[in-house]
Amino acid sequence: MKTDPVPAGPARAFPPEEYSARISKLLSKLGKLGVDGALITDPVTRLYYTGFTSTAGTLLVDAAQGPVFLVDFRYIFMARKAMPFAKCVLTDAKHPKLLEQFTAKWFSCGYEARMSVESFERVKGRLSHIADWVQMDKAIAEQRSVKSRREQQAIRRSVAANDAMFAWAVPQLHPGMTEWEARAVFRRGADLFGQGESFDTIVCAGANGAECHHVPDLTPISARGPLLMDFGIRLDHYCSDMTRNLHFGKPSPLYRKVYDIVLEANRRAVAGLRPGMTGMEVDAIARDFIAKKGYGDAFGHSLGHSVGMEIHEGPNFSAAEARVIKPGMVVTVEPGIYLPGKFGVRIEDVVLVTRTGCECLSTSPRAIL
Amino acid sequence: MKTDPVPAGPARAFPPEEYSARISKLLSKLGKLGVDGALITDPVTRLYYTGFTSTAGTLLVDAAQGPVFLVDFRYIFMARKAMPFAKCVLTDAKHPKLLEQFTAKWFSCGYEARMSVESFERVKGRLSHIADWVQMDKAIAEQRSVKSRREQQAIRRSVAANDAMFAWAVPQLHPGMTEWEARAVFRRGADLFGQGESFDTIVCAGANGAECHHVPDLTPISARGPLLMDFGIRLDHYCSDMTRNLHFGKPSPLYRKVYDIVLEANRRAVAGLRPGMTGMEVDAIARDFIAKKGYGDAFGHSLGHSVGMEIHEGPNFSAAEARVIKPGMVVTVEPGIYLPGKFGVRIEDVVLVTRTGCECLSTSPRAIL
Repeated sequence: MKTDPVPAGPARAFPPEEYSARISKLLSKLGKLGVDGALITDPVTRLYYTGFTSTAGTLLVDAAQGPVFLVDFRYIFMARKAMPFAKCVLTDAKHPKLLEQFTAKWFSCGYEARMSVESFERVKGRLSHIADWVQMDKAIAEQRSVKSRREQQAIRRSVAANDAMFAWAVPQLHPGMTEWEARAVFRRGADLFGQGESFDTIVCAGANGAECHHVPDLTPISARGPLLMDFGIRLDHYCSDMTRNLHFGKPSPLYRKVYDIVLEANRRAVAGLRPGMTGMEVDAIARDFIAKKGYGDAFGHSLGHSVGMEIHEGPNFSAAEARVIKPGMVVTVEPGIYLPGKFGVRIEDVVLVTRTGCECLSTSPRAIL
Repeated sequence: MKTDPVPAGPARAFPPEEYSARISKLLSKLGKLGVDGALITDPVTRLYYTGFTSTAGTLLVDAAQGPVFLVDFRYIFMARKAMPFAKCVLTDAKHPKLLEQFTAKWFSCGYEARMSVESFERVKGRLSHIADWVQMDKAIAEQRSVKSRREQQAIRRSVAANDAMFAWAVPQLHPGMTEWEARAVFRRGADLFGQGESFDTIVCAGANGAECHHVPDLTPISARGPLLMDFGIRLDHYCSDMTRNLHFGKPSPLYRKVYDIVLEANRRAVAGLRPGMTGMEVDAIARDFIAKKGYGDAFGHSLGHSVGMEIHEGPNFSAAEARVIKPGMVVTVEPGIYLPGKFGVRIEDVVLVTRTGCECLSTSPRAIL
């Protein structure tokens, strides 16, 4: 067994200029949307534009005044330390009208439709002077979909740490262990190599692999059967994501055949991907190949999804994705074939779209058979 | 150091009759709201009414047909296994109109305003035959706020396991260790004693305790100073929550004084709480006492919040809470005093409201000085 690494420690934010640059880009987008200002309320979007982690707070962005961060007692001291580029203002019962005051000159306001109906109604009720509410989710998603240099480096680090974590975890997996115990290995690894999982680790022994979002249970890992693992870590706020398959004992000819088809589908998508294609064109590379091999009905999900601060971002590689793939996007390639009652195989890598194609960031061995 | 316990294993759902009973109660509430049916879309609410964990799926509830669960390829097999009381139907590209079909006879529809604006607009667009959309968040929150027998038992188990986890963790905490390393002990404990944390563990060494939502960092635990820890586990889908304070070396007279005030505020609230009081009346017991002692401005947050499947539920013990406290509710009591640059003290227990007062479920020693 490999020895434990030095823990990665707390998540680090980028230097303040990264966030100033992001806010500037947002401002230019706001100009195009024709709004006077914007409210950033979602925890992840807030973190994207500020580098500050919190469960509360509103970032106000407009062209006239600099960024303003309104937050309560619990976060105000930390906010001031973390955000030299923003004016951090304490909201409390004694100052109940700050949101109204700082938006007083706005007639139109950008908001996030990922906000709950409940929250949106509350905000609209408070800011009755705003005549026009404009959704800016598309603009923000567009900005977030193309990763900056620093983001690309952060994702590279996250993927590399996830690869290292897998190499550390594999020797600890053995027949007789339950899926739940195997999950514990990955969770502990995610805490050591990063700041925890980027999503709930999936471990599927034997036929459970045919349930592609199986929740790990007390099924023991068989001495003669496959093990499907889908896992990722969060490192410095950026996610990694990978699916690999182990097989204890000799795989059946059917398993080998299916494994080879999935691997070939993965390879073809990675080799064929070009910026300028739509998400559905990339999806079709793998889907058509799997269908041609007779397993079209056994590949029921999309080929991939973008990855960044969130494990599922857009655009996707899916049959419904009309958005165009651009250099700087980071996307998973994860074809799968699921045979109920038998097994499932999925092989997932993270790729960075380049100017000419893509670079596969995941380096863990694909076949451990 | 205590030896590690046998891991708690995967989360267990209640027997199906618990969920049937919950859906029946919801149906009677729908009758009062005057709606023909309801869409349950939020992951937590969905879990509350089904016992089924997933990231997707819509539960349709109406009086005419039994409960229907629409879900995609990834979850359909597991859904059918887990929900004998519901009709589980596969949604895919070949059956794009199922939501429309199953709601065809509805004129009015209950929905959750905790849904995003984006999702709500999409659903409204699809179900254009629905004339009336009625928010049912209040009705659902009301149902969830009073815990059933099984829920009370589950929360008791979660709180007891959190107490046991704390007893296991304390001997592993020592001066020189960083907050981040102390956090790792609690995270590992949460995985062993439950299915992980119910929220991000807070560990504050020394003056960091004055930031009441401090994010653990590389600050070392001093050989002469306080350590504030706020942590909880999730066991079988139910949360626990507790704050305790350690002090290495001899506490200053000021620390002792503040500690005693906070403890007394906690005790008075627990002793004074009666069903029939409003949340603000309970809050006032602790708040008035702390103010009388001269630290009113140093207690900037609410006295407590309900706990259940989510770490923050309603009603709260807060200066703004007009809702009435009822037997069967489970709420935290967590007064605190925060002195910037010096330290913070918070003492938090979980209490179950009874017919005559409340029972304090947390049993860990309150003062470890």
